Amino acid sequence: MRDELLRRYADVVVEVGANVQPGQIVSVQADTEAVPFARVLAASAYRHGARFVDANYTDTYVKRARLEHAAEETLGYVPPWYGDRLLAQGQHHAARISIAPNPSPGVLDGIDPERAAKDALPFLAETFEVINGRTTNWTVVPYPTAAWARMVHPELEVDAALDRLWQEVEHVCRLDEPDPAAAWRQRRDELKAVADRLTERRFDALHLEGPGTDLTLGLLPGSDWAGGGDTNADGIEHLSNLPTEEVFTAPDPERADGVVRATKPLVLAGSTLEGLTVRFEGGRAVQVDAETNAEVLRGHTARDDGASRLGELALVDGAGRIGKLGTTFFTTLLDENAASHLAFGNAYERSAATPADVKRLNRSAIHVDFMVGGDDVSVTGIARDGARVPVLRAGEWQV
Amino acid sequence: MRDELLRRYADVVVEVGANVQPGQIVSVQADTEAVPFARVLAASAYRHGARFVDANYTDTYVKRARLEHAAEETLGYVPPWYGDRLLAQGQHHAARISIAPNPSPGVLDGIDPERAAKDALPFLAETFEVINGRTTNWTVVPYPTAAWARMVHPELEVDAALDRLWQEVEHVCRLDEPDPAAAWRQRRDELKAVADRLTERRFDALHLEGPGTDLTLGLLPGSDWAGGGDTNADGIEHLSNLPTEEVFTAPDPERADGVVRATKPLVLAGSTLEGLTVRFEGGRAVQVDAETNAEVLRGHTARDDGASRLGELALVDGAGRIGKLGTTFFTTLLDENAASHLAFGNAYERSAATPADVKRLNRSAIHVDFMVGGDDVSVTGIARDGARVPVLRAGEWQV
Repeated sequence: MRDELLRRYADVVVEVGANVQPGQIVSVQADTEAVPFARVLAASAYRHGARFVDANYTDTYVKRARLEHAAEETLGYVPPWYGDRLLAQGQHHAARISIAPNPSPGVLDGIDPERAAKDALPFLAETFEVINGRTTNWTVVPYPTAAWARMVHPELEVDAALDRLWQEVEHVCRLDEPDPAAAWRQRRDELKAVADRLTERRFDALHLEGPGTDLTLGLLPGSDWAGGGDTNADGIEHLSNLPTEEVFTAPDPERADGVVRATKPLVLAGSTLEGLTVRFEGGRAVQVDAETNAEVLRGHTARDDGASRLGELALVDGAGRIGKLGTTFFTTLLDENAASHLAFGNAYERSAATPADVKRLNRSAIHVDFMVGGDDVSVTGIARDGARVPVLRAGEWQV
Repeated sequence: MRDELLRRYADVVVEVGANVQPGQIVSVQADTEAVPFARVLAASAYRHGARFVDANYTDTYVKRARLEHAAEETLGYVPPWYGDRLLAQGQHHAARISIAPNPSPGVLDGIDPERAAKDALPFLAETFEVINGRTTNWTVVPYPTAAWARMVHPELEVDAALDRLWQEVEHVCRLDEPDPAAAWRQRRDELKAVADRLTERRFDALHLEGPGTDLTLGLLPGSDWAGGGDTNADGIEHLSNLPTEEVFTAPDPERADGVVRATKPLVLAGSTLEGLTVRFEGGRAVQVDAETNAEVLRGHTARDDGASRLGELALVDGAGRIGKLGTTFFTTLLDENAASHLAFGNAYERSAATPADVKRLNRSAIHVDFMVGGDDVSVTGIARDGARVPVLRAGEWQV
C-alpha cells in the first residue's frame, strides 16, 4: 500500500518538483532515516533518464556523537569536500532533491543547545551560491518517519501517528488528486499571478498586525516578489519546495521596526523554540525571547553581521492546504508553507530586480525561517505616498 | 548484548585497525546496511579525539536501480567529486575506516553481469593513489548483516545465521581474546617476521601445485614482502585489513605461466563465480573459465592492459583463524585471509624495493583478489640458481 504511494510520490517529485531532464546527474540528499524514499526516488530518476543518481546520506546519530564528544572548538568545522561536492553539482547543472526533515527530529534531544548551534550540518554555506547561480533544478520534499510522526502527533500510538502524518503529507503534496502534476501546475500559476501583482505595487513597506505582533518591514525599491516555482538558467521550471504555498521577497535589511510573535514553534538545530518573540530596531533583532531554547536562536543570530537581520519575507494565503490542517509539523518546509514568515540571514538574489538591488540584500551564513502569519495576522501594504492598502485579511488576498 | 560487542569491536577498529590519532578527520565508508556499526564507530572515533567523522554511506539498492534502468553507456560514469573526496582525505592525512562487504551481498542478484561489470562503484580508481601515497592510516573491517549471513549460512534460519556469522566474526577479529588489541599486536609481529624472511630470500619465482593448479609466478628482483600491517608516511602503524593473516608481494607482471584453480568462490560485482580456473601465458590470463558467471571476471580483466595481469601474490598459513573455520564468507576481506591468493590488476607500490622496481609493477584500474591456496596447495620457492625451496606445506611455513 505505502509502496505504491511512495512510487507515485517519487514520480511527482522527479517530474514536477525537480523536473529531472534526461542525461542529468541527480543529487538525492537525505538523512539515513529516509533511505527507503531515496531508493524509490533513485529508481524514478533513472527511469526518467538520469545519467547518475548521487544518493548522499547524512546521519543525525553521527552528528549527535559529535555534539556529545568532540572538542567544542571543532564543532564548526566542515571538511572542504562537503561544499566542493555541492559546487560541483552546480557546475554539472545537476538536478537536486533534498528530503526533509534533516536533521532527523528528536535525535538531538538533550544536547546542549549552545554546542548544537555551532554545528550547522547538513546545511552548507555553499547552498546560497548554488541557488543564486540558478544552475540546478532543485526541490525540497517531506518524508514521514516514525520519530517525526511521534513529535507531530504525540497523542497517538507511533503506528497511528505515522499513518496520520502520511495522510497529511499525501494531502498537502496533492498526491490525492487524480493528476497531482496537473494540480501543482495550477497552484503554481495562481501563486505566480499573486507575486506579479505584488511586484507591480512596489510598496515602500508592509505592516504586520496581530496578537503580540506590530512590525513594519521596509521593502527595497527593487524588491521583486516570486512564488509558484522557479525557472533556472537553463530554462528548467522546478518547484523549490514541494509543497509550496508562498509568495516571497527580500526586505530592506535596514528597515524592520517593532515586535513580532511567532505563530508556530520553530525547530532549530534539533531544539524546539516555543513562544518566540523578537523585537527589531533599524532592521536588527535587538531582543530574542522564547519560552524554550531562546539561546539556540540567539546563537544563530550572533553568527555574523547579517545573521540578526532579515533576508526573506513570505506571505501565505488561506487557500493552501497546510494551514487548514491546523497541524504543527515542527519542520520549516511544511510550517513555512502554512503561514506567512520571516527569515533571519541570507536573502535570495532572485528577490532583487537589478544588480544594484542585489548589493543591498542581506548577507549571512545562516537562513532561519520563523512563522509569523495566521488568520488573525493582517498584512497591509504602505505605498510610497503613505497610503495603506490591505494585502492579507483573514487569510484572503486583497490584491 | 550485541550493543556491547559492537562497542568493543569499534574500539579495536579505532585503536588498532585505523589507529585514529587525536585531531584527525576520520572517514567511515559503509553500505546503508552497516549504518548501526558506522554510528558506533563514529562515537568511538570522537571519544578518541577525532576532529570530524565523515560518515559516507553508499547504497547497493540505488546501484541496483542504476543497473536496471540507466543507459548502458552511462554505467561507467563516476562524478568527479567522488574521487576528489578521497584524494582530499589523503591531503588532509585522514584516518579511513571501510566496512565490508560493500556492495551488500545478494542485492544485485539477477542483474545482467555484463552491465554489473561496467559499474565498479563504490570502488574508486583514486584508491590506489591514496594507498600508495601512504598519507592515510586505514583499515577495512567486516560487519555481519542478515543478507550476508543468509548467503554464508543458507542452511540456517536467518536469525540463527546472523548469530553464527557474528560468532565467527567475533572469533576471527580476536574480539573473544581478553585483550584483543594485544592479540593483534602479537599476530602482527609474527606476520612481519615471515615477510622479512621471504624478502631476504629474493626468490626468482614461486611454484604453486595442487588440485587443478600448476602455476609458476616470476618475482621481480625487488619484490618486497609485507605483512602484519603498515606504517604510513606520518609513522602511524595501522592494520589495513582487520582481520589480517597474509604476507604479500607483487609478482613480475610478465611472468605467470600455467593454470590455477580457485579454492573459494569469488564474489565480484554482486555475482558469485564458482569453480574459477585461469590459464596464464607470459603473465597474461589467456583463458578464464568458471562454472558460474565467468563473464563477470572476463569483463573486469578486459578493462585495460594491466587488468589481465597479476598485481599481487599473497600467502596465508594455517595459523590464521579464518581458514580453520572452513566457512566460505563470499567476501574478499575474509576469504583472502583464509587462503593464499592472487590479484588481477593494480599492484601496491610498497611491494617494490626501489623506484626502478615500482616502474615494473602492474598497473590497472582494477584489483580483483581470488583464492588459490589451501592445505593441499604447496608453495615452493625457486632460487636464482634454480634450487627449489619449500615455502608452505600443508599450511605450515617452511621458511
